[in-house]
Amino acid sequence: MNLDSIDCCVSSAYSQSLNGTRLGDTAEETMSIREYIKSSRHIVVPNHDDRKIAVINSVLSSFGLPRAVHLCIPTNSPDLTRTPAVSKALMALDITGADLVIARGRLGVPGSGSMLVIMDSRGRILSASLSPSHLYHAKSISDAVTHEMEEALVRVGFQKEKI
Amino acid sequence: MNLDSIDCCVSSAYSQSLNGTRLGDTAEETMSIREYIKSSRHIVVPNHDDRKIAVINSVLSSFGLPRAVHLCIPTNSPDLTRTPAVSKALMALDITGADLVIARGRLGVPGSGSMLVIMDSRGRILSASLSPSHLYHAKSISDAVTHEMEEALVRVGFQKEKI
Amino acid sequence: MNLDSIDCCVSSAYSQSLNGTRLGDTAEETMSIREYIKSSRHIVVPNHDDRKIAVINSVLSSFGLPRAVHLCIPTNSPDLTRTPAVSKALMALDITGADLVIARGRLGVPGSGSMLVIMDSRGRILSASLSPSHLYHAKSISDAVTHEMEEALVRVGFQKEKI
Amino acid sequence: MNLDSIDCCVSSAYSQSLNGTRLGDTAEETMSIREYIKSSRHIVVPNHDDRKIAVINSVLSSFGLPRAVHLCIPTNSPDLTRTPAVSKALMALDITGADLVIARGRLGVPGSGSMLVIMDSRGRILSASLSPSHLYHAKSISDAVTHEMEEALVRVGFQKEKI
Repeated sequence: MNLDSIDCCVSSAYSQSLNGTRLGDTAEETMSIREYIKSSRHIVVPNHDDRKIAVINSVLSSFGLPRAVHLCIPTNSPDLTRTPAVSKALMALDITGADLVIARGRLGVPGSGSMLVIMDSRGRILSASLSPSHLYHAKSISDAVTHEMEEALVRVGFQKEKI
Repeated sequence: MNLDSIDCCVSSAYSQSLNGTRLGDTAEETMSIREYIKSSRHIVVPNHDDRKIAVINSVLSSFGLPRAVHLCIPTNSPDLTRTPAVSKALMALDITGADLVIARGRLGVPGSGSMLVIMDSRGRILSASLSPSHLYHAKSISDAVTHEMEEALVRVGFQKEKI
Repeated sequence: MNLDSIDCCVSSAYSQSLNGTRLGDTAEETMSIREYIKSSRHIVVPNHDDRKIAVINSVLSSFGLPRAVHLCIPTNSPDLTRTPAVSKALMALDITGADLVIARGRLGVPGSGSMLVIMDSRGRILSASLSPSHLYHAKSISDAVTHEMEEALVRVGFQKEKI
Repeated sequence: MNLDSIDCCVSSAYSQSLNGTRLGDTAEETMSIREYIKSSRHIVVPNHDDRKIAVINSVLSSFGLPRAVHLCIPTNSPDLTRTPAVSKALMALDITGADLVIARGRLGVPGSGSMLVIMDSRGRILSASLSPSHLYHAKSISDAVTHEMEEALVRVGFQKEKI
């Protein structure tokens, strides 16, 4: 686990923000995120059923990343909060003490579409991706989750492994 | 303002979640979000400079939506929180009492890329969009903001006006 | 409703914090909080049963404040979040669109005792009070709630009406 | 560190809440909180000056608990959030990776008085205590902090050591 490396980046970025010298994400910061994800040993995907875990593991595998395990939790409780996807990730984290949580749920108010969020063991957001409300796209759940999972990894600098 | 309409949808969706009958976003819910945005009279875009307001207003105009005004606030304080974009939106809301806030900032930890968030007057997230860390795309800020603003509107069912 | 007055205070306090001139709560700020509470017309107390509403209304009455109404919501969902009392208040707010919410629930992790929170219509915390874990006090629920409700009012400058 | 013990309690309490069998805090839960605090090796107290650290260490010592160290961070940034005390604790946690954070700051909106919060390494609230707005009590800062720190410990079952 490279939590220390992320803590260092957070600490350094905080100093920059306080000094007014912050210029945006650095290569070192995104590398810390990738290293943390790569070195996670206990990755959980909370959901009320296990339909998404195979899709997510398939994407993780294509990026050379460790497999996740399914955590069965009901989704109605996080849906009663203002940020259901983030709440679902925090619940999974607090139940399991996992290194990494990958959770998919509603972004905000009902109607606001979905969010996939990648969270570290302290409850911090490492990456995420969004899909439109399902009313406005024709993708299957499986295709939507594949796309979201890939995007969440690519946007912090991961690349698919060559075959 | 159609806050009542959103409150109704939230209340109804909460009941569905509690009863275990929730099936995902409905057309009525996304319409409530659109109606709320359309009828907003006081829209603010918080930022330390006013470079993004012209771009955002250009997109709002192309969707037939009301103009936003710039609110000058420093960005270093929200950057010290765990969800900088959402924190920036809440600060703008609490300072101005606006109907709607459109805020752009960092998604999560340093390195996690950017998020544009659309928030109602109660502090709830109506829509959002994400960009990769700027290290992984070649877009200008202006193009990135245009794309994010359009995506945040399209994913809840808005369409560009025909010319 | 004096939401404008609270917004003014928040805006002014934010400027003081940004300028480094903030010296702590002012008499004007606590007066804004009291005025907001006094002028609330729709006050809700969310709970799974209605045992606390009579106690809370009795305290509100002894301070010359308007009555609250009971909102029946299950408490298990907020208990799955990291801040159950605050989550319960936000849920009640989002369902009802109330002017004011008075919610009692767990403070933080299981074992952390209880919190009573007073929240405005934007989801901001106006006042609160805490009780020890019930294992460490001998009060009845009724006495504990009475004490918490009184304390939450007194700490922002309310006084009991003379009889 | 007994993070595992807290995780177990959280997990078990979540199951009770989901099953509708939750009856409130248990002796095992408050003991987990106490064990976690007792076994913390790196305790930080974030503040813009170091006036409170001596007072807090004096209280910690009188309960037989390990000493805390001062972390100098500006307080204006957390004051711009909706929950300044909790935000200050999270900032200190994210900068230091501490086992335990003890932070004092404003409870909610300007005028809402102060809160002392005890947070674990995952960002969860273990205990807290509140003071009225300083306009409504005559205590020195030193006496107020002593009282808050003692109360935050006593309410989860700690007892002062006999001399």
